[in-house]
Amino acid sequence: MSLVATDANFLSASDAVNALAHKKISVVELVQACLARIDKRDAEVGAWAYLDRDSILREAKDRDGKPPQGPLYGLPVGIKDVIDTAGLPTEYGSKIYRGHRPARDASCVALVRRAGGIVFGKTVTTEFALFQPGKTKNPHNPAHSPGGSSSGSAAAVADFQVPVAFGTQTSGSTIRPAAFCGVVGYKPTFSLFTAAGVRALAPSLDTLGLMSRTVEDLFLMTRVLFGHDQILSKSPGRRIRLALCRTPFWAAASVDQQAAFDNCARELAAAGVSIEEIDLPDWFSSLGEDHQSIMASEIARNFISENSPSTQELLSPRMREIIDEGWKVHIESYLKIRARVSRARIEFSTIAKPFDAIMVPSAPGEAPKLANTGDPVFNRVWTLLGIPAVTLPVGFGTHGLPLGVQCVGRADEDHDLLATCREFEKMLGARCAVPH
Amino acid sequence: MSLVATDANFLSASDAVNALAHKKISVVELVQACLARIDKRDAEVGAWAYLDRDSILREAKDRDGKPPQGPLYGLPVGIKDVIDTAGLPTEYGSKIYRGHRPARDASCVALVRRAGGIVFGKTVTTEFALFQPGKTKNPHNPAHSPGGSSSGSAAAVADFQVPVAFGTQTSGSTIRPAAFCGVVGYKPTFSLFTAAGVRALAPSLDTLGLMSRTVEDLFLMTRVLFGHDQILSKSPGRRIRLALCRTPFWAAASVDQQAAFDNCARELAAAGVSIEEIDLPDWFSSLGEDHQSIMASEIARNFISENSPSTQELLSPRMREIIDEGWKVHIESYLKIRARVSRARIEFSTIAKPFDAIMVPSAPGEAPKLANTGDPVFNRVWTLLGIPAVTLPVGFGTHGLPLGVQCVGRADEDHDLLATCREFEKMLGARCAVPH
Repeated sequence: MSLVATDANFLSASDAVNALAHKKISVVELVQACLARIDKRDAEVGAWAYLDRDSILREAKDRDGKPPQGPLYGLPVGIKDVIDTAGLPTEYGSKIYRGHRPARDASCVALVRRAGGIVFGKTVTTEFALFQPGKTKNPHNPAHSPGGSSSGSAAAVADFQVPVAFGTQTSGSTIRPAAFCGVVGYKPTFSLFTAAGVRALAPSLDTLGLMSRTVEDLFLMTRVLFGHDQILSKSPGRRIRLALCRTPFWAAASVDQQAAFDNCARELAAAGVSIEEIDLPDWFSSLGEDHQSIMASEIARNFISENSPSTQELLSPRMREIIDEGWKVHIESYLKIRARVSRARIEFSTIAKPFDAIMVPSAPGEAPKLANTGDPVFNRVWTLLGIPAVTLPVGFGTHGLPLGVQCVGRADEDHDLLATCREFEKMLGARCAVPH
Repeated sequence: MSLVATDANFLSASDAVNALAHKKISVVELVQACLARIDKRDAEVGAWAYLDRDSILREAKDRDGKPPQGPLYGLPVGIKDVIDTAGLPTEYGSKIYRGHRPARDASCVALVRRAGGIVFGKTVTTEFALFQPGKTKNPHNPAHSPGGSSSGSAAAVADFQVPVAFGTQTSGSTIRPAAFCGVVGYKPTFSLFTAAGVRALAPSLDTLGLMSRTVEDLFLMTRVLFGHDQILSKSPGRRIRLALCRTPFWAAASVDQQAAFDNCARELAAAGVSIEEIDLPDWFSSLGEDHQSIMASEIARNFISENSPSTQELLSPRMREIIDEGWKVHIESYLKIRARVSRARIEFSTIAKPFDAIMVPSAPGEAPKLANTGDPVFNRVWTLLGIPAVTLPVGFGTHGLPLGVQCVGRADEDHDLLATCREFEKMLGARCAVPH
């Protein structure tokens, strides 16, 4: 790889840490390339809730003065602003927390620092990772939404402003924005990565997620989030078995999303993947509603102080509506739903067992116009089941905006799903396109 | 009930809120009775990490001046000091956090306030809810441990200093101290009550728990934690089916614990409970080790900043050891363990299905001498399986210290387990004894 330092922001995370470790570029050069990209594009994209150029450059210089250390040595990482960062503002996308500075790093942030990564800044989130959008626009077309709630992380990675960023997902907040912005998104098995220090929305669903431009970079970050030099096997080691699943929500997908899905299936079959079409049983359709009841109930119980008279008017009307709905969920019905979900997890594990992955749409199609972060219809059930999901960018729709396909896997077998997606990425030539 | 206000601290939570709501006692009277008990006993028991008499009395007076409102109107509630309280010190049992005052109430604390309860003070916890004990002593004998990690909550409730208190459980931190102190303890299904604002130890295991002196009070608190006026059915409505399970760890139980267990079974059978003895399959025994690997791995990832050079020496040697062990857990083995645990949950749900409860020992026996908070051998597997557990006080051992029996239930069927335990409490005459 020949490398012009001013283009270093276009490197994947894995390529960047290699170049840094071997001193092919300096940390300052990489950081400056990212900052230059942000200078050029920020007025249009608006991915950042907080970014302190001077402090980043100081940290980069300091890093250059010491021997390379850690698997993320010198790598800029974007942090969604629902994730606590010691000393940096963390506003959770809410006016209630304007200027709030947590005392302690979230665990994932501490892990990034420990691995030598640079906490680059805080990316825009919707209000408390729910629906009310922030200022971010889709880097492929500023009239369109980047998706939510991890809007800034998806846009910043898609726009080559940082190579990787953290998202979170409670309904579809990592996979959907990643698909809308045309990057790789990963929602792990529930609670695989610790969410300590991540602002709780609905704790039985909240999952720390990742945005990157290659699946390889998900391996890198997964290692970092386990905090030591781990080697993960990266190949399924045999013919991949893929299930195609149109889901009961197929009619919600646009014609171009459906076509992109079918094209992918054809290309993967041509590349030697064993493909089988599966239908989901009837009980599956009702899980979307179950997800919404659980989420609303937990949100009501988690936002008591914010919903008190002194700050209530700073919550969006939509959020207050959800809180009101949440209080209506009776504990016995909450328990019944959870018991039903447990059974669904068991039944789904039987369905998923023969396959390395199940391919489904990532979203209903291209990103909608601004003010609407899109519909999580193709995401919330997987979040509810707690299973891992990866979206890959697979092309563009009729309006020139990215489309994705999503691979979901078996609970607690994330390494298999990542290995499978890495093969798919090669077979499909799935890669992020430069927006401008 | 004829009521002498100075004895109001001996009321159960349910009786106290009734008396308060009907103005049979004032909030000030109840609070003064609790404070008087603490004045008398605190030097010996040491249950409180923080308690501000003036502010409690001010709040009580304020409450008396307004019409009764909320299901906990005027009720003192103890808060384990790993749970955030806005404006009150929250030190997590660690020197690192001396004087730390969180900005925000944990969700469970906000729910108590919303229900009209009084946040009475912070109860002593072991270091970060792990092993290193605090100053608390067993109220039945100060030479003995109150158990850990929810030491202060168990001791304060057992000693009639407050009617209810929050605990948490990652291994056996609610059930074990409750049994050692002779109170009712409840570890709900994993994530049933939101743990937002509770300091994370091992998030895939951490569970908010409760201590009280009657099962009725668990119903009251469960309603409060769902935040609205809920009616929970309180009777199984048919003959109770109980499984007796000596577990593969039976040999770890003392002779008097074994006898207490067998006596309970006889009494329940005599009272008409249908009883069946069950054995657990072989895979069950290895779950204890699995629990320890998961816990260590998550602790390592959650205490990076505390384990950094600037504060490391303020961690106990035992905790640093566990962190070191945790870093050795490879992600693939962590994933494998989790997959095994998922299968164990499924298999256990089949075993548990025919029964209203499965009775097991709560602990190996009476509380050990101080400096050792006891062995969670009879707790950690249930925590790992995520199922609900309740301990009932059933008598005293050879050293005059309390013994408990534990009933575990089906995941997400906590209301059935509580209803069953309420019947058992009546049948056994299980009640807390005044220590002195």
